[in-house]
Amino acid sequence: MSGATDGEGQLEDERRSARKHRAILQAATTVFLSNGYLGTSMDKIAALAHVSKQTVYKHFADKERLFSEIVTATVDEIADPNTDEVLNLQDTGDLESDLRDFARRQLRAVMEPRLLQLRRLVIGEAGRFPELGRLFYERGPGRTIEALSAEFERFASRGALECDDPHLAAAHFNWLVMSIPLNQAMLLGENEPATPSELDRFADAGVRAFLAAYRKG
Amino acid sequence: MSGATDGEGQLEDERRSARKHRAILQAATTVFLSNGYLGTSMDKIAALAHVSKQTVYKHFADKERLFSEIVTATVDEIADPNTDEVLNLQDTGDLESDLRDFARRQLRAVMEPRLLQLRRLVIGEAGRFPELGRLFYERGPGRTIEALSAEFERFASRGALECDDPHLAAAHFNWLVMSIPLNQAMLLGENEPATPSELDRFADAGVRAFLAAYRKG
Repeated sequence: MSGATDGEGQLEDERRSARKHRAILQAATTVFLSNGYLGTSMDKIAALAHVSKQTVYKHFADKERLFSEIVTATVDEIADPNTDEVLNLQDTGDLESDLRDFARRQLRAVMEPRLLQLRRLVIGEAGRFPELGRLFYERGPGRTIEALSAEFERFASRGALECDDPHLAAAHFNWLVMSIPLNQAMLLGENEPATPSELDRFADAGVRAFLAAYRKG
Repeated sequence: MSGATDGEGQLEDERRSARKHRAILQAATTVFLSNGYLGTSMDKIAALAHVSKQTVYKHFADKERLFSEIVTATVDEIADPNTDEVLNLQDTGDLESDLRDFARRQLRAVMEPRLLQLRRLVIGEAGRFPELGRLFYERGPGRTIEALSAEFERFASRGALECDDPHLAAAHFNWLVMSIPLNQAMLLGENEPATPSELDRFADAGVRAFLAAYRKG
C-alpha cells in the first residue's frame, strides 16, 4: 500500500472509504433499531447514509452481515463502560451504600433507550440469529454477573457477605435490581419509561432485599 | 337467524364457518410464532389452514387483527392456569415448602416453549404493537404479581413474612424465581433449554433468597 506511486490520492480514497463505512454503520443502526430486521432494506440504509446501494454492498456483503456488525458494535460500545462500572464498585466499608451507588449506575445504563431497543430487537430475532443473542447475553448480563461474582467472593472472604455460591448471589443481585423496570420496558415499550428517581427506588429496593438475604450475620 | 327458512343448511354453514375460523387461528399461531410478524403473510396462513386467502380475509379483516387475536388467545390460554396456580399456593404452615412447590410449578409454566416464543415475538414487536405488550404484561407477570401480593399480605398479617410493601415483595419473589432461566432463554433462544431439574434448582434458590430476605424474625 505505502509503495503506491500516487500515495496522496490513495490516502484520500481510503479516508473517503472509511467515512462511508462509518456513515453506513450509523444509518444501519438507526434503520434496524426502528424497523427490525425484516423491516429493513439495503435501499433504506443507502438512502439514509447518502450512498448508493452498490456502495453498501461493497462495504458489507449482505444484510445479515450488516445486522451482525451493528449489534456487535452497539453492544460493545455499551458493554465496555458497564464493565468499568463493575470495576468501579467502591469498597469504602459501607457495603449498603457502595452497592446502592453501583446498582443505581448500572440500572441507568441498562435502561438507556438505545440499549432497550437493541435488547428487544435481539430477543425478537433470537430464533433467526441465535449467535447475536449469545453475544448480547455474554457481553451484557453475563459479563456483569461474572464480574460481580468475583467481587462478591472477595466480600464473602472478608466476612461481609454470606454466599456459598458467589455466581448465584451475583445473578440474584443483578435481577433484583434490574428485573422490575426491565421487564416492564421490554413488554410495555417506551411509552411509559421509568423516571430516573423511580429507577433509583428500584435499585435501592433491590439492594435492600439482596443484603437482607446475603449479608453476613 | 333462528327465523331462517332453511334452518338445517344454515346450521351446517355455521359449523363449517366455525371450523374454518379455528383452523385459521391455529395456522396463524404456528406461522406467526415461527416467522414473526413481518415474516408472516396471509398466503402462508391460508395455505397451512387449507382455505383460500379470501376466506382468511372474510374471518379476519387484516394481518394486524389476526396477529392481535392469536396473541390474546395464546396468552389467555396460558395465563388462566397460571392464576389457578397462584390460587393453589398451599398454606400448610410450612412456608418454605409451600413457596417452593408453587415456584417450581410457576417456573415450568413460564418456561413452556410456546410461551417463550410468544414472549420473544411480543417483545420484538412491542414498538409496533404496544397494546399487545401491555396485554402480555398484564395477563402474564402483572397478574401473577398481583395475586401473590394478596397472598403475601395475608402471610405478613399472621406474622410469617415481614414486608411493608407486599407488591414489591411479590415482584422480588417472582423475578428471583424466574429471571435467571428466563433471561437466558430470551437471549439464547431455545438451543440450550434448561432441564426440568435445573429449573427446580433455580426455583428453590430463588425461594431460599426470598425467605432469607423476607421471613419474619
